[in-house]
Amino acid sequence: MMIELFELRGANPEHLFSPYCWRVRLALAHKDLPFTSQPLRFTDKQPIEFSGQKAVPVIRDGETAVNDSMAIFSYLDAQYPQKPLLGDAVSANRARLLERLIFGALRMPLLKILVPRVFACIDEADKEYFRTSREKALGTTLEDFADREAGIAAFGKAAAPLEGWLKDQPYLDGEAPAGTDYLIAGLFLWAWCLGEQPWESGSAVDAWFQRILKDYEAQHGPVVRAA
Amino acid sequence: MMIELFELRGANPEHLFSPYCWRVRLALAHKDLPFTSQPLRFTDKQPIEFSGQKAVPVIRDGETAVNDSMAIFSYLDAQYPQKPLLGDAVSANRARLLERLIFGALRMPLLKILVPRVFACIDEADKEYFRTSREKALGTTLEDFADREAGIAAFGKAAAPLEGWLKDQPYLDGEAPAGTDYLIAGLFLWAWCLGEQPWESGSAVDAWFQRILKDYEAQHGPVVRAA
Repeated sequence: MMIELFELRGANPEHLFSPYCWRVRLALAHKDLPFTSQPLRFTDKQPIEFSGQKAVPVIRDGETAVNDSMAIFSYLDAQYPQKPLLGDAVSANRARLLERLIFGALRMPLLKILVPRVFACIDEADKEYFRTSREKALGTTLEDFADREAGIAAFGKAAAPLEGWLKDQPYLDGEAPAGTDYLIAGLFLWAWCLGEQPWESGSAVDAWFQRILKDYEAQHGPVVRAA
Repeated sequence: MMIELFELRGANPEHLFSPYCWRVRLALAHKDLPFTSQPLRFTDKQPIEFSGQKAVPVIRDGETAVNDSMAIFSYLDAQYPQKPLLGDAVSANRARLLERLIFGALRMPLLKILVPRVFACIDEADKEYFRTSREKALGTTLEDFADREAGIAAFGKAAAPLEGWLKDQPYLDGEAPAGTDYLIAGLFLWAWCLGEQPWESGSAVDAWFQRILKDYEAQHGPVVRAA
């Protein structure tokens, strides 16, 4: 039986934008693993009750349910060893530390850009949930938090070390893409699918992203972007 | 024949403080490799002429000369595979990217703190060289560049993600120290040996540094710190 991926959708069921769910899609594509998608709204909790979890991504592979993008990467490496995502214990640990550092630096700038985009594209049924949960976490209103210009400036600053690195080699993980690339590319797809591109066209970061996107689209067709 | 390490010294030949040379000392200790030290002033170029290089660290291992701390790590892993520093190609690449990100964030804050300390502790014969080369690179005088208070504040901010990480596990590389730990601990020894400690005593970062220092000192005796 094929792997099932439970993932976040917008009002349009084909509009995917969760950075964590994108990580898993990219990882499945990397390993050439076919899967079926179960796109869910934020508030569709019933379909993932079997997993004991309340948040996507969740994968179901036969009898096994795995949630959390990093845990899914580990599971896929253990179960489908071709083209490792994380590698041995030390290598996996390095990927996790890189994720921590890069995600930590890029997340806030991206949120400042993307919060209004997410709110605009989600289903009506999700809007109250999204507003209430995010405003509680952010300690302010979505409208007061959002700051596209500041977000783009902060993103550029935080992404500068990646730009330097990617000038010297095609992928974060070296000559070929692996786990670190997908952990970070998920963030870029979050922006991309919401209709933003806070990095410069023609930059090394842009070329890296386009390489990953192209490989993914060659397998799964064009990704749906918000207008 | 024992490995020879050509490394930077202060006016006191036992006073070592170069972050790059410390990386190599820590790596040699990690692999339990004995070595002899050739401590050199900045301006002692003749003893490393054999290597074709003008900067330490350089190691000589029989007929082989290797310079650059990262290249020395690769060489040591290839020649002495016990307790890998960098690991396989992807893992090594991740260590290099971590070094790029963490070093990039910590270097400037440390320089602002340490430049006057370095100038004070080097041999009289090195002072003109150090001042001229550094002032050219920094685009200003050593005195105008140095800013201990700003450096300490910036260091704390840049080290915050490491603090979070090290609260959850003892080493950057996980349960045991490896290459990433030594690449970064070299920076901490730079400060430590120059008599500074820009991180908080009792922090997770401090506990990590003390673990690495203790293991090193158990093999090689106490490190010499500037007053």
